[in-house]
Order: sequence, then structure tokens, then C-alpha cells
Amino acid sequence: MNSLGTVQTQSVTLFHPPNPLVLKSGMKLGPIDIAYETYGKLNAEKSNVILIFHTLTSDANAAGLHKGAKNPGWWDDMIGPGKAFDTNEYFIISSNVLGSCKGTTGPASINPAMNKPYGLSFPFVTIDDMVRAQKLLLDHFGIKKVLCAAGGSMGGLQALLWATLYPDIVESVIAIACNTRHTAQQIALHEVSRQAIMADPDWNAGDYYGVSIPARGMAVARMIGHITYMSEKSMDEKFGRKLIGKEKLGFDFTHDFEVESYLKYRGDSFVSRFDANSYIYLSKALDYFDMAAETSLVQAFASAKAKFLVIAFSSDWLYPAYQSREMVRAIRANDLDVSFIEIQNNYGHDSFLVEVEGQSQVIKPFLKKVYEDR
Amino acid sequence: MNSLGTVQTQSVTLFHPPNPLVLKSGMKLGPIDIAYETYGKLNAEKSNVILIFHTLTSDANAAGLHKGAKNPGWWDDMIGPGKAFDTNEYFIISSNVLGSCKGTTGPASINPAMNKPYGLSFPFVTIDDMVRAQKLLLDHFGIKKVLCAAGGSMGGLQALLWATLYPDIVESVIAIACNTRHTAQQIALHEVSRQAIMADPDWNAGDYYGVSIPARGMAVARMIGHITYMSEKSMDEKFGRKLIGKEKLGFDFTHDFEVESYLKYRGDSFVSRFDANSYIYLSKALDYFDMAAETSLVQAFASAKAKFLVIAFSSDWLYPAYQSREMVRAIRANDLDVSFIEIQNNYGHDSFLVEVEGQSQVIKPFLKKVYEDR
Repeated sequence: MNSLGTVQTQSVTLFHPPNPLVLKSGMKLGPIDIAYETYGKLNAEKSNVILIFHTLTSDANAAGLHKGAKNPGWWDDMIGPGKAFDTNEYFIISSNVLGSCKGTTGPASINPAMNKPYGLSFPFVTIDDMVRAQKLLLDHFGIKKVLCAAGGSMGGLQALLWATLYPDIVESVIAIACNTRHTAQQIALHEVSRQAIMADPDWNAGDYYGVSIPARGMAVARMIGHITYMSEKSMDEKFGRKLIGKEKLGFDFTHDFEVESYLKYRGDSFVSRFDANSYIYLSKALDYFDMAAETSLVQAFASAKAKFLVIAFSSDWLYPAYQSREMVRAIRANDLDVSFIEIQNNYGHDSFLVEVEGQSQVIKPFLKKVYEDR
Repeated sequence: MNSLGTVQTQSVTLFHPPNPLVLKSGMKLGPIDIAYETYGKLNAEKSNVILIFHTLTSDANAAGLHKGAKNPGWWDDMIGPGKAFDTNEYFIISSNVLGSCKGTTGPASINPAMNKPYGLSFPFVTIDDMVRAQKLLLDHFGIKKVLCAAGGSMGGLQALLWATLYPDIVESVIAIACNTRHTAQQIALHEVSRQAIMADPDWNAGDYYGVSIPARGMAVARMIGHITYMSEKSMDEKFGRKLIGKEKLGFDFTHDFEVESYLKYRGDSFVSRFDANSYIYLSKALDYFDMAAETSLVQAFASAKAKFLVIAFSSDWLYPAYQSREMVRAIRANDLDVSFIEIQNNYGHDSFLVEVEGQSQVIKPFLKKVYEDR
């Protein structure tokens, strides 16, 4: 497959005083830096725009390679010349979400009022707030129409809100491995992760910048995450009971199994690449997500005009397929055009990152049809 | 239902020098206190004995009420006059496992060589070792035959090993919500729990007795446990997105949802009732469990002579039913008598504690038939 080659994250500062972003909580935030990348070319009519949204711990680098980086963007298999999101056809914007630590303003950013990192003085953000910040980025580009809003996991939630908040802008949505409200189990898993971080004395009520990192809590939180991203079957196929670097069980408390050292590695590497407070803020934003909080689920989609493509995976136990089917029924009840596919595989929630062929086969024709039918 | 009334845990000290228990690791341990309870009456032929085995964090008090206690034993609904394990018919022995902290010798017990708690100087124990210790308890009673070895979760693993290690003693096995080897996901979930405890500075490499308790790590470990004991559906039915003590979302990092405070409560109460080192030792014993480690799974059951009843639950994702079916196939391949039932419900792994009727309906006639057919 062709790659985009070298790409670069760019940044724009928006919501300058006296025009801050009014958050769902009622609090105000501004100025806000937004980090983003674009791939492909905006056509003359500005009619080929696709917005790509990332997950909890990801960033604007959805595709292409940063100079000096070893690995390309997180959806590089899906975005590029001739790929599912074909950069020969479409102009793709991928931005880092509000509250993150990858270039967009978040708790690790400098609070201009205090000249030090926000920490817990950063206001509470929701998925709504992320979307409203992204909207100003779109205005900044002078773009009035979005051919498609697309994402998996937390990215899918943003795509759904784009369709309901900005129905006259969004022409289609691709919502992958996501749902319409965070459920008790999803909240529970996040809450344990938050408690693990907050239990680390180095967290220091969020005021640790320049002093320490709550590394132990972060590692535990990330280990929990990785278990939920895989399926029971994919873990068994990948690791089983394989031993690591020893011929037999050690009868002690060092690591015996590959799965143990894999999780340890994932946990430890997370510490150096993500901010603990961002993890707390964004996981809480996810838990607050509930499209039917103030209305019925059917009514929640009443404003939407987009065409929908909903993708779920049989082995995803974090966002089970039945939750996608609930979503599809609610969309359909509004006489909206919705396609649904449940892809059978063993990869669990990670499927939306690794199941390239299965997704490409439905995404490519879906986008083509939306583009041609406009 | 009739209750057993007030019961008491008793204790016996076995494996006195120079006859210590030789552990699977090759290390030796003795003397060993074993805490146990008995219910019902041993008949003259000593032919009505049922061994009941408990889970990771449970104890010998399987049924009946301790003086002054608010709640009866953990399987009180299943054990008593007229119940599934009918104390009018059978003599039931329930003992606390080796390595626990509920009366049987474990890491919190005094190491006689050092006159202080073992901590990490306690030798590594396996499920095999637990069973071999229980065998000496049986010898202590002068019992030569076991009508049934029964348990759920970790208790089921003990029951399976009893049948293969002592085939001439064990006449039947009831193995509930368990499997024949710990899988990658089960190991992963335990490893995160252990890391959470070990990351707590108060754990102090296991040397915390009389000084501190790794309360924060313990609470996180227990929260993870409770998520795995319920199903996604049962969590959603019990908690959904219900708020706790507030009319609306707080937009802060206090608890908003009932499921969050439930987990916090479960986590915190665990700290005062269980020993952190015991949790680490017993979870590791579970992860080491693999009946087919040195042979095929079919061969692993070759020595057994018992009749088997295997029970699984459709909603149990910690010990999925397909793993029980693997077990059943291996037992059947040895021409052994095995019955299997998968009970359809929403309770998850907790089913073996709460699904009283479904289990009683199969256990009662199974025991009766084994007893009469002898």
C-alpha cells in the first residue's frame, strides 16, 4: 500500500478572549491550542472533507510518518493513497481532542492565569466540548460541509455528536466499535483505572508536573486498558500460557508468563507517552457520554440528516455489538439511511485498528456513494 | 429454608516436624494450621463425606452463622438441612486453603523460625499443595472415602485435582464455573491486581505487618475482581447509569455513578478483611494451575475414577462455558461418567454463589444417585 510519507502536526490557537469556549459544565476555557494534521487536498468546492477522530490516548497523527519516528500514525493502514480513506480523493482532517496532552490544550498545558500547568484547575470536559472545539477548527479552514465524520471507540462518539449537533454540515458518519451511552461496566473499568492513578502518591492531587510522574498508577491503568482492548480468544492465541525467558515456572513472584511481561511493557511505555491527568479527564468525559441523557435514544438522533455506516466486531467485549445494534435501531427509527455490519473476528476492541480489510471493504464504497450522491 | 444455625471454625495443626508438607516447588512447610468447619453428621461407615472448597478470598465458613456475625457462610443457600448439599444426609467438611489468611497457615502467619509473620518468606504454594494439605486433614478424621469433592471457581480446581490425585478416595466431583488451566486473560487480570498491590508503597515488599496496610492497592485489586465477577448485563441491570446521592452529574472527579461507589465500597471493605500477601500468593497459585502442563488434557484425567458433574454459566466471562466444555470432552474421552449443564442467566461468574435454584436442581439428584449407586 502507498504511504503518505512524512507528515507534520500543525497547531492553531482559537477561542481567544473574550470568546472562550463555553463548556457543557458552564465553565469557560480559552485560548485553546488545537493540534491537527491534514492529508490529501481540499478541492475547490471544499466538498471532499473527512474528519477523523481518535481514541482516548491517541493523537492527531492518524497517518503518515513523523520525521524520525519509527511507527506511522495509528490508522495508517486505513488512510492514504488508494486506502479506505483515500487521500487521492478526500481531504482529511485529524485533530487532537480537547483535554489531551498531544498538542491540544489539556491539564498538562500552561494555565495562563497561573503561569503553570493547569493540573486539576483544568475545567471538566465532555465529548460535546471536544466536538465544539473541533467545529471552530473547521470554521478556521472556512469549510462549510463535511463529507464524512468518522472514528472508532471514543472517535466514534465524536462522529455521532457531529451528526446531531451539526446536521446541516455533516453528510455522513462512520461510527465504529462505539455506542450511544457509556454503560456500567465501561464506567467501572474506567473508575478502577482512575483510582489506580489517584492512589499513586506521586499523583499528588494532579499537581506533579516537573516533580514526579504517577508511573505505577499509570502502568496499572494501562494494563487494565490493554486487557479490555483484546478478546479472551485473541489473548489466548497470542500468549496462551507461554513462558517468558525461562524454561519452567519460577515458583516466585517475578514474571513467568509472556502475557505478564507484555502488559508490564505496555504499562511502562504508556507512562512516558501520556499525561496522567489527561487520562483521568478523558476517561471521565467518556463516562459522561450519554446521548439519551435528556431524551429518548430515538429522539437523540432526530436532528441528524447524515447517512450512517455503523461497524461493530463480534469479539469486542468493551463495546459489544448489541450496543451498536441499539444505535442502528434508533437511527433507523428516524427514517435515516443507516448501514450496519458486524465483522466476525477474534481481535476484540482493537479490531477497528487492525481489521483493515474487513473495514476497508465497506468504508470505501460507502464513502464513494455518499460523495457521488451529494 | 432451614439454616444450620450457629457454627464455629475449628483448627488443627498438622505437618509437624520432621514431617513437613513438601510443596510442588520443592520447598517444605510445617507445622501447618488448618481451619475448617463441618456440618451434618458423619455416618458409622464414614461414607457420607462431602468436601467443599472455597474461592480465592473466601474461608472455611461455607454455611451457618458465626456467633455475632451479620451474614451466614458464603454458600449458606446451598448447604443445610434439605438444601442442595443436604446436611440431613451428608457430612460436610469445608476447610480454609493453604496460603490464605482465614485460620490456615499463610503469609500473615507467624514464621516460627523468625518469630514474626512470614511475609514473602512464605513458600510459594499451588492448588496441588492446597489439596495435599486437605488430604492430611481427611486422614486426621480417619476418613477413607469422599462421596463428593465440590466447589466453584478456585474451589472447582481443587475438586478436579482431588479426583486425579486421589482417585481411590473420591467417588464424585462437582466442578462449577472453573476450568482446567488458567488462560492468558485470567493471568492478565490477576497480574494487574498484583501489580496494583505491589505498586502501593505501603506494601513494602510484603513486610507491612503491624506497620501499615497496602490499602489503596488492595482496593484497586478488589475493584478489578468485582468487575470480572459480574456480567456486562448484570452490571447494567443493577447499576446502569444511576447516579449516587446527586440529582445530576457533578462535572468533577468525585463519584457520580452508583457503580463507582459500589466498587469503592467493595474495594475498601476488602482491605479490612483480607491479607494483601495472601491475595498475591493465591492469585499466583491460580495462574500456575494447568492440569495439562506435563501431559495432554485427556491424559490429565486418566487416573480419575469419579463421576463428574460440571456446571457452567452462559454469562460467566471470567471462566467462559467453552472452557468447561473442553473439560467435559477430556473427561468423557476417558470413558468416565460426566454430566454437563450450562445454566443460562445474567449473573456472570457470581452465578455459582447466587444461582441457587438452577444449581440445586442438578446437584441434589446427582449426589443422591452417587450415594445410592455406590
